[in-house]
Amino acid sequence: MKLGLIGLGKMGYNLALNLLDNQHEVVATDVNSSQVENIAKDGATPAQSIVELVDKLEAPRTIWMMVPAGEITEQVLSELKPLLSVGDRVIDGGNSNYKDTLRRSEEMDAYGIHYFDVGTSGGTEGARNGACYMIGGDETEFRKIEAIFKDTAIESGYHFAGRTGSGHFLKMVHNGIEYGMMQAIGEGFDILEKSPFDYDYEQVANVWNHGSVIRSWLMELTESAFSKDAKLEDIRGVMNSSGEGKWTVESALDLQTAAPVIALSLMMRYRSQEDDTFTGKVVAALRNEFGGHAVVKN
Amino acid sequence: MKLGLIGLGKMGYNLALNLLDNQHEVVATDVNSSQVENIAKDGATPAQSIVELVDKLEAPRTIWMMVPAGEITEQVLSELKPLLSVGDRVIDGGNSNYKDTLRRSEEMDAYGIHYFDVGTSGGTEGARNGACYMIGGDETEFRKIEAIFKDTAIESGYHFAGRTGSGHFLKMVHNGIEYGMMQAIGEGFDILEKSPFDYDYEQVANVWNHGSVIRSWLMELTESAFSKDAKLEDIRGVMNSSGEGKWTVESALDLQTAAPVIALSLMMRYRSQEDDTFTGKVVAALRNEFGGHAVVKN
Amino acid sequence: MKLGLIGLGKMGYNLALNLLDNQHEVVATDVNSSQVENIAKDGATPAQSIVELVDKLEAPRTIWMMVPAGEITEQVLSELKPLLSVGDRVIDGGNSNYKDTLRRSEEMDAYGIHYFDVGTSGGTEGARNGACYMIGGDETEFRKIEAIFKDTAIESGYHFAGRTGSGHFLKMVHNGIEYGMMQAIGEGFDILEKSPFDYDYEQVANVWNHGSVIRSWLMELTESAFSKDAKLEDIRGVMNSSGEGKWTVESALDLQTAAPVIALSLMMRYRSQEDDTFTGKVVAALRNEFGGHAVVKN
Amino acid sequence: MKLGLIGLGKMGYNLALNLLDNQHEVVATDVNSSQVENIAKDGATPAQSIVELVDKLEAPRTIWMMVPAGEITEQVLSELKPLLSVGDRVIDGGNSNYKDTLRRSEEMDAYGIHYFDVGTSGGTEGARNGACYMIGGDETEFRKIEAIFKDTAIESGYHFAGRTGSGHFLKMVHNGIEYGMMQAIGEGFDILEKSPFDYDYEQVANVWNHGSVIRSWLMELTESAFSKDAKLEDIRGVMNSSGEGKWTVESALDLQTAAPVIALSLMMRYRSQEDDTFTGKVVAALRNEFGGHAVVKN
Repeated sequence: MKLGLIGLGKMGYNLALNLLDNQHEVVATDVNSSQVENIAKDGATPAQSIVELVDKLEAPRTIWMMVPAGEITEQVLSELKPLLSVGDRVIDGGNSNYKDTLRRSEEMDAYGIHYFDVGTSGGTEGARNGACYMIGGDETEFRKIEAIFKDTAIESGYHFAGRTGSGHFLKMVHNGIEYGMMQAIGEGFDILEKSPFDYDYEQVANVWNHGSVIRSWLMELTESAFSKDAKLEDIRGVMNSSGEGKWTVESALDLQTAAPVIALSLMMRYRSQEDDTFTGKVVAALRNEFGGHAVVKN
Repeated sequence: MKLGLIGLGKMGYNLALNLLDNQHEVVATDVNSSQVENIAKDGATPAQSIVELVDKLEAPRTIWMMVPAGEITEQVLSELKPLLSVGDRVIDGGNSNYKDTLRRSEEMDAYGIHYFDVGTSGGTEGARNGACYMIGGDETEFRKIEAIFKDTAIESGYHFAGRTGSGHFLKMVHNGIEYGMMQAIGEGFDILEKSPFDYDYEQVANVWNHGSVIRSWLMELTESAFSKDAKLEDIRGVMNSSGEGKWTVESALDLQTAAPVIALSLMMRYRSQEDDTFTGKVVAALRNEFGGHAVVKN
Repeated sequence: MKLGLIGLGKMGYNLALNLLDNQHEVVATDVNSSQVENIAKDGATPAQSIVELVDKLEAPRTIWMMVPAGEITEQVLSELKPLLSVGDRVIDGGNSNYKDTLRRSEEMDAYGIHYFDVGTSGGTEGARNGACYMIGGDETEFRKIEAIFKDTAIESGYHFAGRTGSGHFLKMVHNGIEYGMMQAIGEGFDILEKSPFDYDYEQVANVWNHGSVIRSWLMELTESAFSKDAKLEDIRGVMNSSGEGKWTVESALDLQTAAPVIALSLMMRYRSQEDDTFTGKVVAALRNEFGGHAVVKN
Repeated sequence: MKLGLIGLGKMGYNLALNLLDNQHEVVATDVNSSQVENIAKDGATPAQSIVELVDKLEAPRTIWMMVPAGEITEQVLSELKPLLSVGDRVIDGGNSNYKDTLRRSEEMDAYGIHYFDVGTSGGTEGARNGACYMIGGDETEFRKIEAIFKDTAIESGYHFAGRTGSGHFLKMVHNGIEYGMMQAIGEGFDILEKSPFDYDYEQVANVWNHGSVIRSWLMELTESAFSKDAKLEDIRGVMNSSGEGKWTVESALDLQTAAPVIALSLMMRYRSQEDDTFTGKVVAALRNEFGGHAVVKN
């Protein structure tokens, strides 16, 4: 089918290629015009602006946004809204907070526009060769555009999760679980590293990927990482985060759920971003106060 | 090759069949004589006792123990020790604490017996059709018996990890990671369960197994569990544990490693075994003391 | 000085008495008219409504709200706003979220009204005989009304913390620390309770209050609680919470601070409110799937 | 009464002075002979060795050890044992692990010697002017020597907790609670430090010590620490630990108790002792693998 694609970054560009491979007709735009030229060479219809993109699509239009969550998504939507017609469909394929999605969807509803929230997993490789989608929105409308998800997903790799918001919420929780799994793997190797034994981590990850209970894609990636740098000596253990982990913890709090593993996975990331902590200073000072324990001076 | 197998429980019996399938000659014994009779019908040489088993093997013997860790392993070893000859090999295929392994190996060394610690993962299915082994011991001796691991493991599913103790230590950490991953998955579904959306958990697990970052064997098992009981209404959330998780945390403490996710995974299991907690009583009483907050009466 | 007091609940009534004891002139109102009658007998000027209260004060008025945070505070403020004059002062003595405080203060500013956020600690006893105040707002204005805080606080028990919001933020963090301390105390007694020893908890708390490092008001309250019910057998360990703990964790997340102890204190409260958890069900089901471990049936 | 004191370090010397102030007759020794000379000037009977100390006491002797836990305690006891008579009493006033205490007490029992485990809190100041004791041992024997505890403790600052081991176990748990409280305080100030407000921490701690729920000796020490270094700029947040926190967590695990706050307090100390973590490296590498997220290079 014919659709518009806004955003040709790492994810969006690969998705465009994936759609084109599957015989979909893609009108594509991006703030970076060279990306627009490139995708045109790859077979898409270029659009130099969102206005032009909307213009090149016939109502009811289907427009897939693949842009960063937050401000940019907000901006694209405010630009889109006045250009669209009743019955058009907008897909947010980014990692938006489901609360934003609920608000935006309501705004779109007022214009008669169908809004879909699509959590996308599998990284850039997935976007290119078969992604994993978690989709929220109106089911009847979803069935009309199901093909674009089915075709670009890995086999069985898309799921209509329910009403608007359920797609981004599901992706958020997916990432929360991912945080916990990654921290668990990290802690395990940390214990191995401090142990009295001398392990070959690549081989450890390899055997764990062959028949063990913890075999997983993350363990395959662990193996891959160790294959490039046997002791990870070249990198610092700074663990950044982009939002979904935090939202998962906030949702856990809102829902009064004990989620200690996800919460701690996030907090250890924050800890890793600091060289020293004020918490530590206070505790060290207190130990000195009551026990005369020496402090480490700066 | 010819070897002895002590222990014909769920794991041991399956391992025996697996060894027999692979043309190994198995002399097998168990405290349960009907299991011995059964395995004899399946092609093994039966032995009614450990004495008989040792007797039916020629030095240097290879004897694989597949018995519960702790007291029973201790008992089998004390029975075995006086019967063995210099150069014999003993394999502990159970989930022994690596500290016990180090002590036992030292005792065996004094008798000239080669001791191997083999962590076995993959469950009973793995034991039957392809297990995952983490092996510690003397490497030269290991090469002489490598075939029995290679043949009964899943492809690439065995790893010689280093000196004695390194196999059980690695299995212990594997289980620690497993605890963390399971708790992360559990927390994620708990948040979904309390969310305002109405998810089909089997389908959620299914889509997460197709292209997502958290695809894993544990997520496949999650899918399987939900396929049998869509909301897990039939079971209580009591999370038991058998030892390796605790040992992983103890090792983390000994090695001064921050492993909050593994530690909390374990502690939430303990919490799940109590209907009410004394911690909770104290905190509730304190809230009542200073703020007059109502307590829930028993 | 003369001031208005809105709210004659447990905290507000005691504060009124405290102000009256200190020769302040109090015009008091409450939705519960019998409380208004009572406080009139105790020496306050009764007001049957907020309108009447404002009417009985001369500009620039000082009005202290001692009402529940959230909706009721919102409601009182929206009723007050049109009645006030430029230069009037409003004090929010409740446990409001500092983000609400910042918003409300801005709205009040637009009317030329001075807004103070006052976190109040010490419980109802403190309100009556000497509270602990953490105060945010304009410092020049604060000095004009300092007397009402100084007079009703315990000696040295008030602190001007800085600009608007800093008072409620400080109270929020105070409560976060309180959560952590209470959970630590609870855990300690839980370990004692499960230990092989047979402790007298009241005496334990007593000795810890005499010369130990952990002597504290909370330990005194612990002693008091055990003096009434030696093993806390009459109460359930359900740990409720009212908001500040959650806001502290949310603030920690917003500020990218690792605050595991405060976060876990809160999450263990949530856990205590559930008889069984979905997390536990998932983990139990998984253990059954891969290891055949028995589950507890409902 | 007359007693022997082994160990004249910071704690032991102060205890000796305290005993002398209270008209007890102290025979004192230490490996450091100048400390022995000093205490002689202060009124004690000097002993150049443990042999001499035992010699200068009449059976039944009472000997108080105030030496570091672990090896040194072990050594002193092995030296003492052959010198003592049936009915003598030995007091271990150090921070010994209660499991060591149980073993040692059993060994002493075999010689007819009464063994007391005395957890001592309150720091060096307490040892000098009024300590806090948690005492385990035989109660009848305890009553015979109660005076030395009563006289050197702060008022109400000693507690006979029960049979041998209960004193050191209680002190261990006391320290576990202390870890949790300190971490809670540290986290609170860390949140303040990262907040948009500009607090004076000494004044914050001061007001919290006047009427708030979290008033405590630890908060007084916090105030004292901030009075010396307003932002703790001179010290590093390295949080060392000496053993009791770890033993508390190990005991929690042994007793299957969820003690997340105490466990995390300990683990954050371990974390603070590392500049970078292997956990962090693994997680950062994984994020790079699946999402192409940049890593920080070493």
